[in-house]
Amino acid sequence: MGNLLYVFELLGTLLFAISGALAVRDRDTDLFGATFTGFVTAIGGGTLRDIMLGSYPLAWVSDIRFLYAIILGVFVAYLFFKSLVRLSRTFLFFDALGISLFTILGVEKALSLGMRPEIAAIMGMFSAVMGGVIRDTLIHETPVLFRKEIYATACLGGAVLYLVLNYLGVDRDVNLIISSSLIFIVRLVAVKFKLALPNFKR
Amino acid sequence: MGNLLYVFELLGTLLFAISGALAVRDRDTDLFGATFTGFVTAIGGGTLRDIMLGSYPLAWVSDIRFLYAIILGVFVAYLFFKSLVRLSRTFLFFDALGISLFTILGVEKALSLGMRPEIAAIMGMFSAVMGGVIRDTLIHETPVLFRKEIYATACLGGAVLYLVLNYLGVDRDVNLIISSSLIFIVRLVAVKFKLALPNFKR
Amino acid sequence: MGNLLYVFELLGTLLFAISGALAVRDRDTDLFGATFTGFVTAIGGGTLRDIMLGSYPLAWVSDIRFLYAIILGVFVAYLFFKSLVRLSRTFLFFDALGISLFTILGVEKALSLGMRPEIAAIMGMFSAVMGGVIRDTLIHETPVLFRKEIYATACLGGAVLYLVLNYLGVDRDVNLIISSSLIFIVRLVAVKFKLALPNFKR
Repeated sequence: MGNLLYVFELLGTLLFAISGALAVRDRDTDLFGATFTGFVTAIGGGTLRDIMLGSYPLAWVSDIRFLYAIILGVFVAYLFFKSLVRLSRTFLFFDALGISLFTILGVEKALSLGMRPEIAAIMGMFSAVMGGVIRDTLIHETPVLFRKEIYATACLGGAVLYLVLNYLGVDRDVNLIISSSLIFIVRLVAVKFKLALPNFKR
Repeated sequence: MGNLLYVFELLGTLLFAISGALAVRDRDTDLFGATFTGFVTAIGGGTLRDIMLGSYPLAWVSDIRFLYAIILGVFVAYLFFKSLVRLSRTFLFFDALGISLFTILGVEKALSLGMRPEIAAIMGMFSAVMGGVIRDTLIHETPVLFRKEIYATACLGGAVLYLVLNYLGVDRDVNLIISSSLIFIVRLVAVKFKLALPNFKR
Repeated sequence: MGNLLYVFELLGTLLFAISGALAVRDRDTDLFGATFTGFVTAIGGGTLRDIMLGSYPLAWVSDIRFLYAIILGVFVAYLFFKSLVRLSRTFLFFDALGISLFTILGVEKALSLGMRPEIAAIMGMFSAVMGGVIRDTLIHETPVLFRKEIYATACLGGAVLYLVLNYLGVDRDVNLIISSSLIFIVRLVAVKFKLALPNFKR
């Protein structure tokens, strides 16, 4: 389990760094601003989760590979910027993959610290979406959370599925793959078919 | 004391969840977005206070009733949305009640951790207003803090009153009620009569 | 060393409080709103750094002089508001001096907690720029970080210089002065000559 989780965490960090750096696509942001945005997007959710759980040291502070994953992600975004932005949905794709992995990682982390399943589900969702919320707040866009298509709801659904399968004794590596796939698919389908929850205002 | 404080904390959480969910009234936010906003508004101030004080675990992480209070608050906001929004000042009312309770709770929490009174007053004000500041930042509105009528100043005033009465030996439950009432009344009167502090810019 | 660091930390706090209070110059912000902005700008970066490092208690929570430095800074901003705002570049000057001092302080703090140099450099930059990022987010402006001229890059450069000179055995007080001067000069020169990094988008 540990190894797959760790690989997913590095991969999710890299993907979020790409999505953060690509997020500046409509602006005249310099190299550093894009790197900063990539960095904050990549560490934001996990950092907030660990601070709320009181779990120290933070992963990226104690393990330098996270920093390298971020730099690699920003570099990839820089090299392939035009192609990545031209392909519609590229940004979406990286973001969707990132939230899928981070949700389950967040749930696992909270469970391993002895949290109740309800709190673990929230922490999973938080670690997935808050990097993007911070990114969007920084660049003055409406947080992706408040846009039409299903987003954080998919994370919460995947988190609950993971908790249920976990309770039923499903192997953790298998569960990790099933539950994060669910999030990824729901998110892509939601965007493709413009699926949205009902409005709060009736 | 403990019991009244605890009841007030749950009540304040519920009120802030209502105010957060109602805050999306001018937008096409879905069920989840409103729930998320209610959640963040309800836990934001107390979470920030406890993180700054290094006080773990966070209340809503260790005590599941806070989560239930938030869900109840969002549900109330959903059920009575039209009536609540139509009644002018409803949103204001819940917010004013929420900040009154949270200010004193924050002061108490900081004092119980051995903080100086000056720091306790700031922590009280912070826990009261930061949930709303985070809420307003998320939904891209000018934080309530920067609007005209007296807001955080009322919290700071109530916090100082609480500290003075505490120093004078007034019973804590009585003090809790007096000081939070002061904040509530000052805030409502300020809005009613458009009372504002002088501008910083002369 | 300790003494010079401490003086710089108080001075940097005061400067950031001035810059935060002056930041409301284009708005009808009341006395309290300006004080709040000054406060958050002054403590934001250091607080975020210490929370990410898990270093408690926070400096301003345990040492009341930081609070006095902030109040003094806001008072100075209030008294000399017109002159300070009229002098073009005043705001810039205080901000530049603030980030110069805070960068090196952040690096030192992280090193003293046993962090790797890469992490120490990031923490230095973070503590310097995040107060301003929070300030700009609060007052709904594009964070200074994303504006054209070199800003956080100067901090990162100064942090690296400090780490190199430190590694080479240069006296810490001397190093502190050299490295923070570099940041200050680079920042002022960058604004004067409108120096910018290349755009991320090619």
